[in-house]
Amino acid sequence: MDLKTKIRVIEGFPSVGISFKDITTLLQDKDAFYEAVNMLCDLVDTKVDIVVGPEARGFMFAAVTAYKLKAGFVPIRKKGKLPFDTEQYTYDLEYGVDTIEIHKDAISKGQKVLLVDDLLATGGTLHACAKLVEKCGGEVVGIITLIELEELKGKDKLSEYNVKSLISYDK
Amino acid sequence: MDLKTKIRVIEGFPSVGISFKDITTLLQDKDAFYEAVNMLCDLVDTKVDIVVGPEARGFMFAAVTAYKLKAGFVPIRKKGKLPFDTEQYTYDLEYGVDTIEIHKDAISKGQKVLLVDDLLATGGTLHACAKLVEKCGGEVVGIITLIELEELKGKDKLSEYNVKSLISYDK
Repeated sequence: MDLKTKIRVIEGFPSVGISFKDITTLLQDKDAFYEAVNMLCDLVDTKVDIVVGPEARGFMFAAVTAYKLKAGFVPIRKKGKLPFDTEQYTYDLEYGVDTIEIHKDAISKGQKVLLVDDLLATGGTLHACAKLVEKCGGEVVGIITLIELEELKGKDKLSEYNVKSLISYDK
Repeated sequence: MDLKTKIRVIEGFPSVGISFKDITTLLQDKDAFYEAVNMLCDLVDTKVDIVVGPEARGFMFAAVTAYKLKAGFVPIRKKGKLPFDTEQYTYDLEYGVDTIEIHKDAISKGQKVLLVDDLLATGGTLHACAKLVEKCGGEVVGIITLIELEELKGKDKLSEYNVKSLISYDK
């Protein structure tokens, strides 16, 4: 199946000039969703203890990848959403900064961690997630995303990691 | 496995008097997460075309349930997050109102829809989700949640639906 044909491209969302990749059309197609999850998991070539996914769209593919790989699942959330003691990481956005959090006891020292998200754009959020995992003592053994926007050079930002994506757009 | 022992109860989050059920300790335990997903899916006794989950924690269990049942997955999001044409539903909260959205073309008329969320509290959000699914022409064949807070009588609010939960707290 050509999964790219299942993604809807919406011009001008959320702002003028953006060509938004809408994955909901893939998700709602049971065959496409099933195959996308299986193909994502096939990208993983190493043992994984924990799959980490960032809020909110990252939860979808990260949780299902964790299930299929029989790993634990750990959410990374925006500041103030997690109820227990957290590690925080603040990073620059195009305008301003963002802070994300993970539970301090979510990852044990030396655990092998896979990061999963729907989209690799500039790599800023995934880079912050990786640093947060490392702050907890985890080892980032890979980063996988459904989509990569090549023009934004997220793989350069994440050059120290093993990054793979299922579907690429050149812009 | 007694899944209840895997849930961390945090007193006073997000505000005084609330006894918060923290599911992250269950999610990060690979055996507990795997068993919880399997047990949730065992609660489903009918054919399901689409699994719907509300943002954000609902995405975790809804997406993985969709995968396991080989159904499509459809997210319900807070207002303004979905890129395409939406149906909206506004409902009362304790203080104020909330509006949630679903893509207009996410569900076809007559499709059998299962709602999945982590928590059944007052049932307000899940009731709104069910009404949104019905607005799109879907048939809500069941609602399953990991946790039910019995004291809040969510099952009364959802009495027209087939509601099941895996773990119950009396308060």
